[in-house]
Amino acid sequence: MELKKAVGIEAAKYIEDGMVVGLGTGSTAYYFVEEIGRRVKEEHLNVTGVTTSTRTKEQAESLGIPLKSVDEVERIAITVDGADEISKDFQGIKGGGGALLIEKIVANNSDQVIWIVDQSKMVDELGAFPLPIEVIKYGSQHIFNQLKAKGYNPEFRTNQDGSRYLTDEENYIIDLHMGKITDPLSLGNELIEMVGVVEHGLFLNRVNRVLVGTDEGVKDIKVER
Amino acid sequence: MELKKAVGIEAAKYIEDGMVVGLGTGSTAYYFVEEIGRRVKEEHLNVTGVTTSTRTKEQAESLGIPLKSVDEVERIAITVDGADEISKDFQGIKGGGGALLIEKIVANNSDQVIWIVDQSKMVDELGAFPLPIEVIKYGSQHIFNQLKAKGYNPEFRTNQDGSRYLTDEENYIIDLHMGKITDPLSLGNELIEMVGVVEHGLFLNRVNRVLVGTDEGVKDIKVER
Repeated sequence: MELKKAVGIEAAKYIEDGMVVGLGTGSTAYYFVEEIGRRVKEEHLNVTGVTTSTRTKEQAESLGIPLKSVDEVERIAITVDGADEISKDFQGIKGGGGALLIEKIVANNSDQVIWIVDQSKMVDELGAFPLPIEVIKYGSQHIFNQLKAKGYNPEFRTNQDGSRYLTDEENYIIDLHMGKITDPLSLGNELIEMVGVVEHGLFLNRVNRVLVGTDEGVKDIKVER
Repeated sequence: MELKKAVGIEAAKYIEDGMVVGLGTGSTAYYFVEEIGRRVKEEHLNVTGVTTSTRTKEQAESLGIPLKSVDEVERIAITVDGADEISKDFQGIKGGGGALLIEKIVANNSDQVIWIVDQSKMVDELGAFPLPIEVIKYGSQHIFNQLKAKGYNPEFRTNQDGSRYLTDEENYIIDLHMGKITDPLSLGNELIEMVGVVEHGLFLNRVNRVLVGTDEGVKDIKVER
């Protein structure tokens, strides 16, 4: 928890007065949003937030951060978000929290993307973390069957009561337990071309900076693109 | 109207007892569904329908056609649907009626796809008919701007009262007034890779038979794949 909090606060230092800021979702982004809220209240920081989920929206509203929809802003200066896994070459898996679609839309409209993670998320190769894909409900059983036939070990995400998890856009999530993803780019293309797949959790060539919380402090890595 | 009715009735001749049948959406598919309903009632035809829209579902239910969700059937034997434009090499644009996503999911799970159209839909090259794309609401203004910058003449589809049209999945439709689509395959790839685009109305390498209503009668064209 302390590592997550440390990177959340560190990332907030990149946020300056007047910026439009993308506010990520998840247990690490939570601390970033809290810190932005503190600065808005205590330091009168003047920013406009663009949220990536209903959850983050509620948090940001409770903190008094002024918000706009992504469609009401021209560009987002910086988006700060968590990640579930980051490979050595800075490709990522996101969507453990179920907000991958809106997170990707917001990231896509951002000049800079910063990922904040604790050291456990840094891996050599992606795939130990399940790769989420967001699918249209209608026809999802057939997508599941195709993914199973490919050997991708799909699993519908469920709520604690066993019902199917629904995203903010009322779609299902199928998690792929692949173990290893050796070629994320070609896998991404393969998934997005499946009819009924709305988005997948591979975030490729998208991050500009990674802040990693380690036992020796926060490592700040600029990613060359 | 008579040409549409003629192909609708003609297509129903391909439907045999025991089949799972995909039921298309639109003014031509309407007549096909009516004819299947008539045969169920009068000839005790035994079929299971899989519908492609709320509208077709209501029509089929009123006719007493037994229905299942696409997820409740293994495969669909034949899907009969309309098309808005069919090129000389049998690529198509669909989605004028707004049901392109579910139509594509159903087509994708069908052993045979039959398109029924009147002669006005047969063109040398696609693109005179606006190409619909279904997009997630959030971020859709940015997709619109990108499509505009590419020169694709996008237009949000609206209802008669001027409000934005919503698909059955609560997404927006953007119609692209391209005039000419010289390379539908590469355009399709370009569109599907845009984050927030759920599906596009290009149905490529998907049809097995086209029935065209002409002043000289119904032309039945088998498409080699």
